[in-house]
Amino acid sequence: MQRAAPQTFDRVLSSMCTQPHPAAREAASRFIATNPGDPATYQAVAALEEDALSYLGEITGLATPHGYVASGGTEANIQAIRAARNHARDDDPNVVAPESVHFSFQKAADVLGVELRIVPVDADYRANVAAVREAVDDHTILVAGVAGTTEFGRVDPIPALTEVAHGTGALMHVDAAWGGFILPFTDHEWSFAHAPIDSMTIDPHKYGQAVVPAGGLLFRDKEVVDALAVDTPYLESTSQATLTGTRSGAGVASAAAAMRELWPHGYREEYETQQANAEWLYHELVARGYDAVEPELPLVAARLPDSEFESLRDLGWRISRTASGELRVVCMPHVSRESLRAFLSDLDDVSSGPARN
Amino acid sequence: MQRAAPQTFDRVLSSMCTQPHPAAREAASRFIATNPGDPATYQAVAALEEDALSYLGEITGLATPHGYVASGGTEANIQAIRAARNHARDDDPNVVAPESVHFSFQKAADVLGVELRIVPVDADYRANVAAVREAVDDHTILVAGVAGTTEFGRVDPIPALTEVAHGTGALMHVDAAWGGFILPFTDHEWSFAHAPIDSMTIDPHKYGQAVVPAGGLLFRDKEVVDALAVDTPYLESTSQATLTGTRSGAGVASAAAAMRELWPHGYREEYETQQANAEWLYHELVARGYDAVEPELPLVAARLPDSEFESLRDLGWRISRTASGELRVVCMPHVSRESLRAFLSDLDDVSSGPARN
Repeated sequence: MQRAAPQTFDRVLSSMCTQPHPAAREAASRFIATNPGDPATYQAVAALEEDALSYLGEITGLATPHGYVASGGTEANIQAIRAARNHARDDDPNVVAPESVHFSFQKAADVLGVELRIVPVDADYRANVAAVREAVDDHTILVAGVAGTTEFGRVDPIPALTEVAHGTGALMHVDAAWGGFILPFTDHEWSFAHAPIDSMTIDPHKYGQAVVPAGGLLFRDKEVVDALAVDTPYLESTSQATLTGTRSGAGVASAAAAMRELWPHGYREEYETQQANAEWLYHELVARGYDAVEPELPLVAARLPDSEFESLRDLGWRISRTASGELRVVCMPHVSRESLRAFLSDLDDVSSGPARN
Repeated sequence: MQRAAPQTFDRVLSSMCTQPHPAAREAASRFIATNPGDPATYQAVAALEEDALSYLGEITGLATPHGYVASGGTEANIQAIRAARNHARDDDPNVVAPESVHFSFQKAADVLGVELRIVPVDADYRANVAAVREAVDDHTILVAGVAGTTEFGRVDPIPALTEVAHGTGALMHVDAAWGGFILPFTDHEWSFAHAPIDSMTIDPHKYGQAVVPAGGLLFRDKEVVDALAVDTPYLESTSQATLTGTRSGAGVASAAAAMRELWPHGYREEYETQQANAEWLYHELVARGYDAVEPELPLVAARLPDSEFESLRDLGWRISRTASGELRVVCMPHVSRESLRAFLSDLDDVSSGPARN
């Protein structure tokens, strides 16, 4: 009868998950025994999903949002590609995406039997538009861009990518799973308001401070969502566009509650706090001689010797690295300046000297 | 600032979801801010997933279970087919399943680009083994059977289907999403202990009384699971076999807690109570002249005139129908004899007379 200790977030510095907002936690608890996958039975939570979609539309500049609250960014990305594939009915479909795209695109390609064409990023880790233009062809069903990359927090040139996509008859998808709740407070061009993009991933359970599982999948056109529909014989609703069947009422209710509570002022405040934390950490790392990547959004990447990285993990810091080996610190809402100071102090203790590179 | 009312279960009679056990709810609440999809960061919940898998193995007769806690039965069914597809590497794969199979198989076929061959059931709603044998060929990668069908609660002849599957070189999958936590207390042959089946869906968030999302996917052989693996570049774990990325720590922790609390005595008691409820309801319906299907597991189907069905929905009963139109009452742990009495009393009020058929 052991009771495992729950997670504390003091030393979690590389996760894109965070502590949910108290209002989100409370709503999750109230709706924990509901299933939005069966809207005719669980009507109250079905209404909350409509609320959540409206908020997501407002945040992303889409007056009439179609879509649903998904299990997370991976499902949303898989489903965006599946919708494009079913909509296009091409016999040899491909998807073009920058190498900065989340690994869920590899998963989607395997699951869906779609060719994934990965193209290089530029020197600042953004999608290279010329390379994307080179890679698309008549069988391209979707071009993807990322608004807030997982590894470096970069925003791809969404309007230019959308032109390339539409120029070749493909749909344009934006993965703003992580960035979607902070980008509205920046000058980036990333949303349905900035370009005629077709679909977007935006996760309330990341920077939106909802509980897991609460991802978001949005479409501009209803007919693209309809390409996902499967008949539901024993439910009183007639069809289902989601990838999963039973879904989490806690996720849906908490997403609606978090956005009601935090949009826009709470999210703006969080963004400003964490952007300041990221910039402060970046300068501290540079001052110590580390090769660091300037944070455009609240995410700092820096090259650390493996021995220092491992020592910090041994000290209990929950950190991870990019594919090319950089430490990545994601300044999520649970991250405090105090915690970053403690991290730097441990880094100073384990580092081998002032000049590391 | 409206506060939507949470769900009450008094009148929910056709859902395969239920009220979670208090221990499951408590564990969910403690682990709500964890992500088992990132085990190197969220280590405590990763350990709980191992516990949950061990329990699932014990329940299903599998000494060394491979697999994971999924978002639900749909993901588990999709992933079982995906694993079989990737493992077989056939250029024109098909899956053979009885018509009683859950609609997630239709979804899986669309998602994965696999042909789904649906074969008839027998007069008692069970897979017809001869028809399955007729339908398989060299390109069959998987045969599916259901242990507790969604519409009539029937158990397919799993050992015989497994022979057919293995005879044609295909894997054998059992969908026990709903039945898995009640079948151990019956004489049915359904599990890894009864036949050399290869994979199984069994959902803690249905009769297991965990919170949503807690599905279960089990495999006998590790190499079949490995066919699902996708690299995870920025996580300190190296690969991911799940369909989603971020996953619900609440679901995982609650599944472990519910099984620790209820296996086996609590589940047995629940089964006995609800089987008695189902048999009582069946006899009451038959006594009123309704054409009803005898419950083999705690699920009663009965033919009602549409007008009566609609009137009962108008009275607030959350009920649904099979594809062929029968009312289906699923005696889940939240269903009480008192609630069934109230339902019958309303049925008597809305019915047009003693002879309906």
